[in-house]
Amino acid sequence: MKIICQKEDLLHGVNIVSKAVSNRTTLPILECILIDVKNDTINLIGNDLELAINSKLVGNIEKEGSIAIESKMFSEIVRKLPDNEVTIEVLENNLVKITSENCEFKLMGQDATDFPKIPEVEKEKMCEISEIILKNMIKQTIFSVAIEETKPILTGELFEIEGNSLKVVSCDGYRVSYREEFIKNNSNEPIKIVVPGKTLSEINKILEDNDENVKIYYTDNHILFDLGSTIVVSRLLEGEYFNYSQSFTKDYETKVSINKSKLLLAIERAALMSRVNKKHHIKINISEGKINISSNTEIGEAHEDIYTDVKGKDILIGFNPKYLIDALKAIDDDEISIQFTSSLSPCIIEGQNYKYLVMAVRLS
Amino acid sequence: MKIICQKEDLLHGVNIVSKAVSNRTTLPILECILIDVKNDTINLIGNDLELAINSKLVGNIEKEGSIAIESKMFSEIVRKLPDNEVTIEVLENNLVKITSENCEFKLMGQDATDFPKIPEVEKEKMCEISEIILKNMIKQTIFSVAIEETKPILTGELFEIEGNSLKVVSCDGYRVSYREEFIKNNSNEPIKIVVPGKTLSEINKILEDNDENVKIYYTDNHILFDLGSTIVVSRLLEGEYFNYSQSFTKDYETKVSINKSKLLLAIERAALMSRVNKKHHIKINISEGKINISSNTEIGEAHEDIYTDVKGKDILIGFNPKYLIDALKAIDDDEISIQFTSSLSPCIIEGQNYKYLVMAVRLS
Repeated sequence: MKIICQKEDLLHGVNIVSKAVSNRTTLPILECILIDVKNDTINLIGNDLELAINSKLVGNIEKEGSIAIESKMFSEIVRKLPDNEVTIEVLENNLVKITSENCEFKLMGQDATDFPKIPEVEKEKMCEISEIILKNMIKQTIFSVAIEETKPILTGELFEIEGNSLKVVSCDGYRVSYREEFIKNNSNEPIKIVVPGKTLSEINKILEDNDENVKIYYTDNHILFDLGSTIVVSRLLEGEYFNYSQSFTKDYETKVSINKSKLLLAIERAALMSRVNKKHHIKINISEGKINISSNTEIGEAHEDIYTDVKGKDILIGFNPKYLIDALKAIDDDEISIQFTSSLSPCIIEGQNYKYLVMAVRLS
Repeated sequence: MKIICQKEDLLHGVNIVSKAVSNRTTLPILECILIDVKNDTINLIGNDLELAINSKLVGNIEKEGSIAIESKMFSEIVRKLPDNEVTIEVLENNLVKITSENCEFKLMGQDATDFPKIPEVEKEKMCEISEIILKNMIKQTIFSVAIEETKPILTGELFEIEGNSLKVVSCDGYRVSYREEFIKNNSNEPIKIVVPGKTLSEINKILEDNDENVKIYYTDNHILFDLGSTIVVSRLLEGEYFNYSQSFTKDYETKVSINKSKLLLAIERAALMSRVNKKHHIKINISEGKINISSNTEIGEAHEDIYTDVKGKDILIGFNPKYLIDALKAIDDDEISIQFTSSLSPCIIEGQNYKYLVMAVRLS
């Protein structure tokens, strides 16, 4: 194998595919990036068996072939190379020679035949959405994916595709995040798949803020994101996602319309005083024309009034401030509306294409 | 005590004085910032008994007095306050009320009488230097202060003041860093004092990139930096600093004139391959018109030629690359000159107002 490419392109590709490289594994081959050169194409590939990324590299092919190189060292070498042409060549016994200008590296590669194959994904069912919109949908829901593995299905996000609508939902048992957007869809069959949170957080680092369309292909077991020169393939989580839609009740007793930034800042301030123990919570006291946010612990107390539009009954309710802060930070709207049912029921923040549910905390 | 000030000014002051607040201490009062209001002045003070910082705060004084407030919580509250006027008031029993716009915090302060006094420093001996020059002198030497406490005196930097010259020297046993600048000086008596590295690294975060003069007062036990609205007082280290000047020999066998960035990049690249064990080193092979930088370990090998001006004998010499990298990064010059005496002697990089010595490593 022998290729010549620009350092900048190589670094860009290595940065992308290294997101699918295992950090800790008992299989050293999974810590490698595969360079696979065939059919006039240079492929850089990372694959940790759950997630695989293939990125095409622009360059001249002098000789086809393939080699696996330990990802961390390879990334560091590439980063430090001169901003110029780079030649990568496999010598005998998997020895890799990397040269640029006057500098030369030699390091041991690993046999490419040991590198796991990327799963084949049947390209029958497909939908399309722009990079920037998909990126926002993930960013605005990923924070409430479950971290703990007690219910493995909740460590992923539900992708619900039906007609020209994509709904993305995450839930960690204390809150639900929901986003909906229009998509192009080639199938009429409604589908529910659950994509691992790790896959989504890695793909979100690759997605760019542009209007280029991402093609999403899916089967029962896999999802494939086609970003043009980069392809991301992930296995799906098995099992039934919980029926989130019943959580978003339309009934409410109290409805507050409020400036998002003012509310967010007030909650962040009250949260400072609530850090003292694990059961940290803040109090929200809603009465006519006013919402009071407070906390009171052995450290001290904080309280703040926000005068705003309140409809319905007075209510006193407690929350874990982190959950409200995460949801409010995810929302782009300046003015938001929050619904409350009772002191022990969740609140719901709802806008045109999003819904956030946050459980209440029992006040002592 | 009751004061009114702008959030921005308060945050600026708190950020400065919190650099002298203890993080871990058995004396809770040392984890506090003191607000001391007297003689028409609002003082914010941090003091960890080694280093003390007093920063004057612009504001309206409604009532004099003083209070100590736990620094971490106070900093976080101030950071989160609205960008507006802030009122700080001490109620009964050291309860502190902080208000701004519609929000109010109450937290327990501590009795100001328990807060340690800042040492009085006699203002007899004084020299002056601009903020930006002092900042550069520290930045360009601080990295080779000893971390380990085996020789406590080496955890500080030598300040050698003589006539209109200030020399700053640090040494960790493997390398020596030296910087010299002109100063204004009101005393003819030559003086050598050793300032703790921690003091210098904290003051460097406060110094700004401007031409304002810093007044430096010193006694046998203390040094005081007067930055106008901020005063930094530190105790000095006791003991004799080693006689560094004899290390910088004028004799050499080989002298290389070279582009600094090219050399730095080549060493950084070779260093990638030398990380494999604790004894990591790189080889420098100097022959007529050429310097070759290489490393060769079980990970792999790297080598690179730089064609440049070489005077004197050929030489093959080993170095810990980190020490060379630190020195080269500290130097502003584009073109530098390096002197070598033998394969086991240190190299010396010398410019108009700096000298760096780095010990060689015996090549196996």
